[in-house]
Amino acid sequence: MRVRNKPWAKDYLADHPDQMVETPEALMGNWQSRFPKEQPLSVEIGTGKGQFIVEMARQHPDRNFIGIEIQMSVIAAALKKVVASELTNIQMVRTDGEAINTFFAKGEVSNIYLNFSDPWPKSRHAKRRLTSPVFLAHYADVLAKGGQIQFKTDNRGLFEYSLWSLNNFPMIFDGVWLDLHAATDGVEDIQTEYEQKFSAKGPIYQVIAHFPTED
Amino acid sequence: MRVRNKPWAKDYLADHPDQMVETPEALMGNWQSRFPKEQPLSVEIGTGKGQFIVEMARQHPDRNFIGIEIQMSVIAAALKKVVASELTNIQMVRTDGEAINTFFAKGEVSNIYLNFSDPWPKSRHAKRRLTSPVFLAHYADVLAKGGQIQFKTDNRGLFEYSLWSLNNFPMIFDGVWLDLHAATDGVEDIQTEYEQKFSAKGPIYQVIAHFPTED
Repeated sequence: MRVRNKPWAKDYLADHPDQMVETPEALMGNWQSRFPKEQPLSVEIGTGKGQFIVEMARQHPDRNFIGIEIQMSVIAAALKKVVASELTNIQMVRTDGEAINTFFAKGEVSNIYLNFSDPWPKSRHAKRRLTSPVFLAHYADVLAKGGQIQFKTDNRGLFEYSLWSLNNFPMIFDGVWLDLHAATDGVEDIQTEYEQKFSAKGPIYQVIAHFPTED
Repeated sequence: MRVRNKPWAKDYLADHPDQMVETPEALMGNWQSRFPKEQPLSVEIGTGKGQFIVEMARQHPDRNFIGIEIQMSVIAAALKKVVASELTNIQMVRTDGEAINTFFAKGEVSNIYLNFSDPWPKSRHAKRRLTSPVFLAHYADVLAKGGQIQFKTDNRGLFEYSLWSLNNFPMIFDGVWLDLHAATDGVEDIQTEYEQKFSAKGPIYQVIAHFPTED
């Protein structure tokens, strides 16, 4: 997501240490200390302007949420929503999603959400896609047994690649939706800002999957 | 596919014993005897009016093809195309696809094609879908090592189910296409009669997959 630089963003992040984590590595294995209640941890990688994660946190008070976003101006917009929500079950981290296995312990995360990730359409950039094997290996490291990845996109090429990549890793599909907004099975769909703006142009794809359990 | 009854169909089938197999069980392990050359065997289950299988046979003279179709009037239309083509690498079988493991030997088949199969949309009919686990088990029985299933449909619900079913069986995806006619990767697409008629209404989905090899 390209956004205008926001000069106030850096100071705004620094002014909200209760919602904003500066050194995620220091919290490895100890993320529950950031929340009033110890409850299952969900992580969104590439949280954008935060509409999804804040609404998830509002609707699921029995879970804790972490939004990860690398872009300063973008996460500042998300942080504003977090602050305005007054929710205590949500924390923000400004960092890259790739290294999540360096700041979550094995099994510390219950769910991972990937929404409208960068498609990196060129083949030579495939390994940068958030559903490439190198990322999946990191998710496998941090997810609890049976923990799910939920991946949503409007990009056909990225979704074709992701179905292939998850299947080959291997991951086990819990569900596939090829037009999420037309689904009649009652699947939850908290929408992102991007999704609301662009979904009229074509279908939203979604897959939910988990890693096999080692017996 | 619902079609008008064709009074001539039964006699037409009986009049073409060189292209039409009446007792497939008798050929188990010996299908190559029906062709002038011994070469890899591809099977289409639910071959309809035959445009796909006849065109495949024309474009791939180095392979042998078998079209399976249960409906008398439909397979008669396909047989007409086979006869008109004068191709010798294609045979037709009037039977149900479910029991293919009763008339192909283990490893006798190299490829299986499923095109625009009946979606059986009601959950209680899921096991009748050609991509349900009971069918997949039969395909696994007859496919050679590395042999592929290629499944194509315009039915979103059936494709969502099939991705889930193949993945969970498990099968390994070789490729997924969510709008086959827009694909730019050079994938082969021999179209069926149905596909040509209805594809303007929405995307054609395709998955190619194989069974894991037992080590």
